[in-house]
Amino acid sequence: MTKTAVHTPFAQGELGQVLIERLDEAARCSAPGAGVTRLFCSQEHRDVLPTISRWMEQAGLAPQLDAAGNLVGRCPRAQAGEKTFIMGSHQDSVIEGGKYDGMLGVALPILALEALKREGVTLPFGIEVVAFGDEEGVRFPTTLVGSKALAGNVTPDQLDAQDAQGVTLAEALTAFGCNPEQIPAVARDPANTIGFLEVHIEQGPILEQQHHAVGIVTALTGIERHKVTLRGKAGHAGTTPMPMRYDALVGAAEMVLAVDSVLQRTDKLVGVVGKLDVHPNAVNVIPAEVTFTVELRSPERVIRQHGREVITTVLETVAKRRGLILNIERTYSADGVGCADWMMTTLEEACTNVGQPAERLFSGAGHDGLAIQALTDIGMLFVRCKDGLSHHPDEAISAEDGDAATRVVMAFLQQLARS
Amino acid sequence: MTKTAVHTPFAQGELGQVLIERLDEAARCSAPGAGVTRLFCSQEHRDVLPTISRWMEQAGLAPQLDAAGNLVGRCPRAQAGEKTFIMGSHQDSVIEGGKYDGMLGVALPILALEALKREGVTLPFGIEVVAFGDEEGVRFPTTLVGSKALAGNVTPDQLDAQDAQGVTLAEALTAFGCNPEQIPAVARDPANTIGFLEVHIEQGPILEQQHHAVGIVTALTGIERHKVTLRGKAGHAGTTPMPMRYDALVGAAEMVLAVDSVLQRTDKLVGVVGKLDVHPNAVNVIPAEVTFTVELRSPERVIRQHGREVITTVLETVAKRRGLILNIERTYSADGVGCADWMMTTLEEACTNVGQPAERLFSGAGHDGLAIQALTDIGMLFVRCKDGLSHHPDEAISAEDGDAATRVVMAFLQQLARS
Repeated sequence: MTKTAVHTPFAQGELGQVLIERLDEAARCSAPGAGVTRLFCSQEHRDVLPTISRWMEQAGLAPQLDAAGNLVGRCPRAQAGEKTFIMGSHQDSVIEGGKYDGMLGVALPILALEALKREGVTLPFGIEVVAFGDEEGVRFPTTLVGSKALAGNVTPDQLDAQDAQGVTLAEALTAFGCNPEQIPAVARDPANTIGFLEVHIEQGPILEQQHHAVGIVTALTGIERHKVTLRGKAGHAGTTPMPMRYDALVGAAEMVLAVDSVLQRTDKLVGVVGKLDVHPNAVNVIPAEVTFTVELRSPERVIRQHGREVITTVLETVAKRRGLILNIERTYSADGVGCADWMMTTLEEACTNVGQPAERLFSGAGHDGLAIQALTDIGMLFVRCKDGLSHHPDEAISAEDGDAATRVVMAFLQQLARS
Repeated sequence: MTKTAVHTPFAQGELGQVLIERLDEAARCSAPGAGVTRLFCSQEHRDVLPTISRWMEQAGLAPQLDAAGNLVGRCPRAQAGEKTFIMGSHQDSVIEGGKYDGMLGVALPILALEALKREGVTLPFGIEVVAFGDEEGVRFPTTLVGSKALAGNVTPDQLDAQDAQGVTLAEALTAFGCNPEQIPAVARDPANTIGFLEVHIEQGPILEQQHHAVGIVTALTGIERHKVTLRGKAGHAGTTPMPMRYDALVGAAEMVLAVDSVLQRTDKLVGVVGKLDVHPNAVNVIPAEVTFTVELRSPERVIRQHGREVITTVLETVAKRRGLILNIERTYSADGVGCADWMMTTLEEACTNVGQPAERLFSGAGHDGLAIQALTDIGMLFVRCKDGLSHHPDEAISAEDGDAATRVVMAFLQQLARS
């Protein structure tokens, strides 16, 4: 018995249900273990391609694996070389991650296009949806290879990056059936690209707190990381009187509290002391040295810089008062990327059109947009996730929110068609 | 050419010089590496025995290795079974330790006895000096075996303790030429024992700060150790707003400061948070769990107990306010041991007799006296050490202080003879 697709519009709530079913289907392409594990150029990556391809075909997109391991679905206008709007997200997951981080941004725009097609809506520009091969950077010590390929920014050293088994990225791509030498040809022409929209779970609790299904992203955060080393003086913890100690851990404790205090009172700045190591770390020895990390994130460079300056001053004051030797080394720094105003405005109009609140928030995490902004204007739509949880088997969205977000994207594309 | 020992009294300062030379000589019996490494029943332990035996013989003591690996030097009265006063300390060191921790308390009383002998002083009681085989507990996961043997308190499970190579303590003793089955016979008769005096470097900075060569120990500290576990909630450090976090490290930092504050303001109580571990300990993840140790030391049980109660209350308050789950587990507890009043008084008189200040202080570290107090009254004389440093190759005392301490012990024995 052959099923014939009946192209009637999706009923109220049905979009959300189909979306959840599709994400469950994709999640079955996973390495053993809790949740979803689907790394770049893995068997699970290969396994998920026919599924996504089928979705694409149902939406009128022609799927094709590109040289960088991206699965790209193009509508006839895009294939014909017309100006094209790009949507998408990444197919890969962290180890024992969830069903939604990445794959939501693949399945949802495809479903939105299928729904528009069923409603008889035609768009006056090209459309492509990309399932980027790698965004999480788990298998190889490099990340955003797929989105960098679209922007023409993959460097040779990225292709030489090795996984834990010593396989290079170039070798993995070749084994996957891709030709890494053709990656430069993947680059899109900026003049022929309208923009890029990514739908992603929030990975935070703000939308849940606001009781909003979706939120409009203003910027992808800038990140800087510092390594702080604090040297005191080891000593016998039984025989050195308390006032004569130079305890590096007591000093570090004051600093951790001070960093937290600066972060708590500074708007649009978040951060963490996530890693802290004590030496010699013995129950009966006064800590001689403590190293810890300070990570600061803000979409605005000036806020991050101000935070860094305040924290540095506080740390220096504590170290001086306690007679400890302080060293602060910046180990990483990447500026934030703003979403395009027109993209945010159009998303707002789309939200309003489908009866969703349209509050703005910034993304504290990095996304494919960080690479794509070198090519074209970017926009992002966040979807509420349960308990703000991500990178975890319990990561979840509701069918209702999936429905709402799909309708926002449909409205967005129609709004774009009118502008 | 044969040297004939000329038994003239030691000249002013000469005792200190001889003491330092002897300690340098013993320090040459060391495993390779910085400082001194001389573990229990090692080749280095074997190597040092002839040296100590020679010192003993020069002081009129007959050396003998006992069943527990102690080298014991007895004067004729002790050999004859008369009531005996015991002095001594341990021959073993930590790995890459110094020349003075332990061996000072072996070399010094022997030298004091030799000096008394040269001066023609005879003591009306038996004397023995013991070089305990093991006090540091480095090779085997047990400690104070030698002093416990004198007190008759070596247990069978201690003899079964294994070193890193799987050699049991009993096997090591046998290979060293001792018969562990004879250990019970090592036990001294309390009725026939006058007391026990140990000379030891202070391992702390108090005498240096007071500009005193020696100090009289009032008690060996009691020690208790706790393991604190603090559970918060992991989360993405970029996407979780600051006020919505349950950061276990920020909570632990407040607790470390609180513990330090209680210790700073409580007399006769010292302590440390020496070991602290963060999970998952990643630069971009909110710390979900922190474990740390709290060690408290006080010679007085009631002070330690009060400190523990105050700290527990503060930790509970911090955990509750921050929404963190707290668990405190006591992992070790040993009561302190007081030095005998008559021992402290006699040491004071001895100090006064030789023109040394005689301030009292407590020992924040454990010593052989912890085991010997089950046999007899104990006393301890601390000798100033450079920078309060111990368990380190740079551990040092001055010849002047060694001279002063030797004269205090000589005066102490003469005082004892008169009482």
